[in-house]
Amino acid sequence: MRPQTVHDVDTPAVLIDVDVAARNIARAQAHADAIGIKLRPHIKTHKLPFFARQQVAAGAVGITCQKVGEAEVMANAGLTDIFIPYNILGRSKLDRLHALHMRMSLSVSADSETTVRGYAAAFTDPDRRLKVLVECDTGGGRVGVQSPEDALRLAQVIAGAPGLRFGGLMTFPAAGGHEVAEAWLRSARDLLLANGLDCETVTTGGTPDMWRPVDASVVSEYRPGTYVYMDRYQVEKGAGKLEDCAAFVLATVVSRPTATRAILDAGSKSLTSDLLGLQDHGELIGVPGARIVGLSEEHGVVSLPADSQLEVGDKVRVLVNHICPVINLFDEVHLISGEAVVDVLPVAARGKLR
Amino acid sequence: MRPQTVHDVDTPAVLIDVDVAARNIARAQAHADAIGIKLRPHIKTHKLPFFARQQVAAGAVGITCQKVGEAEVMANAGLTDIFIPYNILGRSKLDRLHALHMRMSLSVSADSETTVRGYAAAFTDPDRRLKVLVECDTGGGRVGVQSPEDALRLAQVIAGAPGLRFGGLMTFPAAGGHEVAEAWLRSARDLLLANGLDCETVTTGGTPDMWRPVDASVVSEYRPGTYVYMDRYQVEKGAGKLEDCAAFVLATVVSRPTATRAILDAGSKSLTSDLLGLQDHGELIGVPGARIVGLSEEHGVVSLPADSQLEVGDKVRVLVNHICPVINLFDEVHLISGEAVVDVLPVAARGKLR
Repeated sequence: MRPQTVHDVDTPAVLIDVDVAARNIARAQAHADAIGIKLRPHIKTHKLPFFARQQVAAGAVGITCQKVGEAEVMANAGLTDIFIPYNILGRSKLDRLHALHMRMSLSVSADSETTVRGYAAAFTDPDRRLKVLVECDTGGGRVGVQSPEDALRLAQVIAGAPGLRFGGLMTFPAAGGHEVAEAWLRSARDLLLANGLDCETVTTGGTPDMWRPVDASVVSEYRPGTYVYMDRYQVEKGAGKLEDCAAFVLATVVSRPTATRAILDAGSKSLTSDLLGLQDHGELIGVPGARIVGLSEEHGVVSLPADSQLEVGDKVRVLVNHICPVINLFDEVHLISGEAVVDVLPVAARGKLR
Repeated sequence: MRPQTVHDVDTPAVLIDVDVAARNIARAQAHADAIGIKLRPHIKTHKLPFFARQQVAAGAVGITCQKVGEAEVMANAGLTDIFIPYNILGRSKLDRLHALHMRMSLSVSADSETTVRGYAAAFTDPDRRLKVLVECDTGGGRVGVQSPEDALRLAQVIAGAPGLRFGGLMTFPAAGGHEVAEAWLRSARDLLLANGLDCETVTTGGTPDMWRPVDASVVSEYRPGTYVYMDRYQVEKGAGKLEDCAAFVLATVVSRPTATRAILDAGSKSLTSDLLGLQDHGELIGVPGARIVGLSEEHGVVSLPADSQLEVGDKVRVLVNHICPVINLFDEVHLISGEAVVDVLPVAARGKLR
């Protein structure tokens, strides 16, 4: 039986305030419209068709998924334009990618000839080409070709494959590295143009920097994820305020062993161990002076001022450090509006590792 | 179609060597038998009825689960003696606990009168009492009564409830704190005895210290979890060697952006962010000089010597820092014997947060 109010929700549970999330979706879309770039939200944060559909209804050109399995879930839910910014390798994934591509508009990325050769072998129909973007390491130090010249070389390999279509450039910039990334991308885009290769899409991402000015003369598309829910890290980075946070973990105080210690039924199996450089394992909302100082898998250790009124059985909300991996730990989320529970949704794209 | 060999397994995936796990189960049971204590393995590590049954078949008196939901899965799979060392609160969980208790032999713990009052209200049948142990904070700084005197007081409350039965003492000691914990437990046990309360069970846990001598004159039961699979942390702590490790994450090299960098398709969504005080995010087996120096959700960043032969498409095994939360991220595990895949099992008790 679905709980009627937050008070009745058994813990630990994820609460999603649908009004706050809707506001976040609308605001990001309005910002993208205002600066003249397309929005392609990353579903890694919510993993829900419900919010993917809202994002597209608000004006997003499509969605971003990180795994073929996530794209399958979203395609089954009716999403029709999906970008997977990943080197997809191996027979099994390429077969699934091909099956998906027969149903909808799909695009992917690559940073090596090995990856492109795999795409070229799986996709051979010139009348239904797979759009492939070149992933560029613009300072993030993760995946990507290392220079505009390498981007050109790989773009030429893509353009030369009968079943592929060179679709442009993709990057995930270093934190705070957007200007450097844009200069890199402009240089590569110009080099490609000079060699007769058009960049249909130039796409970048990252919620923390999404409000900074984007150079729309080079970047055509943005892929933020966390903005829909926000979290403690984003608030810390100034991307939003506490009232912009849509997602909280509801937990119960299961023990008050000492005057200055409380134990929550949410540990690393609910909150993850992600610190992202922050102090503490989340913020306890509305409990002055409380700090989540330690986690084991099923226990959260809270230090409290000695006069705290927190009691065994009390339910509390935790603003987590990093919401995306937290969502991946829960089979379902509770959608709320004010204190009312309006729905309980399975996290349909949870745990799609392949 | 199930892959026949490890080579055919799509990544990321968890490989479990059933021969190594069986050896770990047998060795721990032999050790417990030799020192005269009962073994009650914690299923949090494997979350599989398959290994829970093996542990009981080897001689374990029962199993330990941390959540009612885990106990439900194990009861449905035929396990008949389950201890849940947790303060279980709230109508929903207590109803489910009661339903479970009607089917099997269940025991739980408590460290407060609030928790005990909940049990006493839900369990009222003197002919089918719920066994309740008092959880003791013997230095771990987590849950538990703070003194033997408090243990006595709470034991008396339990013993006074018609539907409950005082079952003894439970602790999870501080790392390296077993001697202190045993002294604490002895003192509490003696105080209880002096007040007419018998401790049927005195139970402690933790894999890293499981090979140290246990004082069987006070401790009657041990609840190790990780010993069945082992992991990088346990090897670091000396609880086992690399050849005792049964579980690895199989990953694919998806990018070689520079001569000294490789990217795996296993990030924090496969490996977790758990460091447990270790350097790096796991150990790459058989790749000399490789270090997993960074993780994002779907990428593992590996630093390599410049002459490394690692190529895009290569599959590698990662010994993870902490195996328990990794298992909780995978919907299924691949059981292997040598290089053969012998079965693929759903992680039945995965994600049971309540």
